[in-house]
Amino acid sequence: TGTFDFNNNSHRRYNPLSDSWVLVSPHRTQRPWQGQQEKTSSDSLPDYDATCYLCPGNTRATGPVNPKYESTFVFVNDYAAVKVDQPPYEPSESDKDMKSRLLKAQGTRGTCFVICFSPKHNVTLPLMRVPEIEYVLDTWTSLYYKMKTETPFRYLQIFENKGAVMGCSNPHPHCQAWCTESLPFEPAQEFRSLRSYTAKHGTCLLCDYASVEQQEASRIVLQNDSFMALVPFWAVWPFETMILAQSHTASLLDFTPKQKNDLADLMQKLTIRYDNLFQTSFPYSMGLHQAPINPVADEVDLSHFHMHFYPPLLRGATVRKFLVGFEMLGEPQRDLTAEQAADRIRAVDEVHYLLK
Amino acid sequence: TGTFDFNNNSHRRYNPLSDSWVLVSPHRTQRPWQGQQEKTSSDSLPDYDATCYLCPGNTRATGPVNPKYESTFVFVNDYAAVKVDQPPYEPSESDKDMKSRLLKAQGTRGTCFVICFSPKHNVTLPLMRVPEIEYVLDTWTSLYYKMKTETPFRYLQIFENKGAVMGCSNPHPHCQAWCTESLPFEPAQEFRSLRSYTAKHGTCLLCDYASVEQQEASRIVLQNDSFMALVPFWAVWPFETMILAQSHTASLLDFTPKQKNDLADLMQKLTIRYDNLFQTSFPYSMGLHQAPINPVADEVDLSHFHMHFYPPLLRGATVRKFLVGFEMLGEPQRDLTAEQAADRIRAVDEVHYLLK
Ligand SMILES: O=P(O)(O)O[C@H]1O[C@H](CO)[C@@H](O)[C@H](O)[C@H]1O
Ligand SMILES: O=P(O)(O)O[C@H]1O[C@H](CO)[C@@H](O)[C@H](O)[C@H]1O
Repeated sequence: TGTFDFNNNSHRRYNPLSDSWVLVSPHRTQRPWQGQQEKTSSDSLPDYDATCYLCPGNTRATGPVNPKYESTFVFVNDYAAVKVDQPPYEPSESDKDMKSRLLKAQGTRGTCFVICFSPKHNVTLPLMRVPEIEYVLDTWTSLYYKMKTETPFRYLQIFENKGAVMGCSNPHPHCQAWCTESLPFEPAQEFRSLRSYTAKHGTCLLCDYASVEQQEASRIVLQNDSFMALVPFWAVWPFETMILAQSHTASLLDFTPKQKNDLADLMQKLTIRYDNLFQTSFPYSMGLHQAPINPVADEVDLSHFHMHFYPPLLRGATVRKFLVGFEMLGEPQRDLTAEQAADRIRAVDEVHYLLK
Repeated sequence: TGTFDFNNNSHRRYNPLSDSWVLVSPHRTQRPWQGQQEKTSSDSLPDYDATCYLCPGNTRATGPVNPKYESTFVFVNDYAAVKVDQPPYEPSESDKDMKSRLLKAQGTRGTCFVICFSPKHNVTLPLMRVPEIEYVLDTWTSLYYKMKTETPFRYLQIFENKGAVMGCSNPHPHCQAWCTESLPFEPAQEFRSLRSYTAKHGTCLLCDYASVEQQEASRIVLQNDSFMALVPFWAVWPFETMILAQSHTASLLDFTPKQKNDLADLMQKLTIRYDNLFQTSFPYSMGLHQAPINPVADEVDLSHFHMHFYPPLLRGATVRKFLVGFEMLGEPQRDLTAEQAADRIRAVDEVHYLLK
């Protein structure tokens, strides 16, 4: 039966950041698809939409009127998942009581922000200019600083849901930032992994990972002096990528102007390639992982700035990957390998298909 | 600002089985929805479809002809994620080598089965009679026994994806069973939690949990002598439920005829209520967690049979919950509380809406 071939034989790969596994079945890409098809987004939106609650000058569902903003615009989500004021929850915690150890809860205060990237209704990151994306980074940095200095909250999770298939209900370019009293599960898990790696090996897991990927080269999609975009060895989503700081940088607050410019440039280049892959406005959820705004112990030292991009599409603009059944009950499964995905993203044109 | 109210204030709840957290934002149910709408499934399918690759007597894409089966029918998936034969993968593992500790993989052999529940194209579990569901349980039990005795593989994950929104490409009633060389991540995680709970408290986490839920009653949806169906305290999906054995039973192999009958009965009753909730064929992924077919150490003793149901719908037949953005980068978030969901499921009729 020959020798083992990662491009043809089933295997699992370990994710050292989240301490989990993914099943890879590369031979399965031949499978025909008879299931649900996604609608593609129309490419012909107006640059202002009178019914959009994010466009400048419009009135939102709960009453407030948006300013006539000219670059970015930040406001508190009208339907926030967490709020600044609520009564404290004080459970009678005692590990001897079966009920309190099995029904464990915490009160969580915080604030949810919406951040518009542009006054234009019909642009997206790949269609924005690099200085405009730098301005988005500046807006994130100011909000991070403001939350850090003015609130007692623990973490600021900045993320973007793009496309109807990712639960985004408005195409106006925007992201969200949820500021919470507690450190959310995913970054908490990453800190656990980073901490135990450093304790064991004396180095930073993500610094080491960046240097391994430099040696291997097969999963790197794009890079510049400050950042690299790669398909992680342990990617779950078909075209999942990670933007990783080349040097050990804790948060947006530590970026030099050069780093900020390099990140904006890489974000633009990566999302252009994403759009070109299936000639569609490529849906994804993306987000930043960085130092907590209110860090404890070694968290700042451990932090190595990175962004995750989780795009659902598998084989064209209308066929997505479903992480269901085996993925929910067993473990995530993917078809094409991380290396094959990186090849595909590298192969597409670097000029946006709408601008040619 | 008053006292803390679980039905009105944001909080996190801990999942002791998977060792993770969920953010609950009960006030957020008022949020209007302008996003993607799902198609509802048509209720008027024929009982035989000549183009269906699962109907009796039809030919599948890769050539084989289905027998004219009269109850259940099991076959090996034509596009299996794992296969019985492949070359062994032997990595040069050494913890001193940065590359091998960051790029960790394992070869995985196994078999993927498809299990048709019925020859009829247009039924689903809630529309089947209890003896027919018992026959499905018998089929699962035989397959479990066969894999246990005839293969070296570790685990058999039985699961059903129901509905196009859950990635199911064929409405013919069927589930899958993936038999793998490795213990998948989710059950492995549960065994870790069960083991550490027993080490600490001397009892079984799920036995204790069943008795806490009996005392509280607020999250129990249905029960009989052998099983209970409840919305777990830490549920993530809006109408997530768990079917839990009332007594410490390791696997399908240990069921008495009475237990088998009780489980079939509860599965039918629960899925009828699901369908009645939004008067639609209710989509979900569900699956069984039980003892590994090839257990090591204390795994059989630790096993407490249960089933998870993960349904995506939130507010009607066409509006689903998206676990995206914050959920992927931070932690899962839900709107209505587990207790509110249980109330809703209890409130619907026990007779299927199509049979009235
Ligand atoms: O094998 P199926 O039903 O075609 O495929 C479906 O279930 C599998 C197991 O949960 C998933 O990996 C696939 O993404 C999904 O589309
Ligand atoms: O706040 P939005 O964009 O309306 O809502 C979307 O993103 C949230 C955060 O990822 C999710 O909790 C919602 O399920 C999703 O629909």
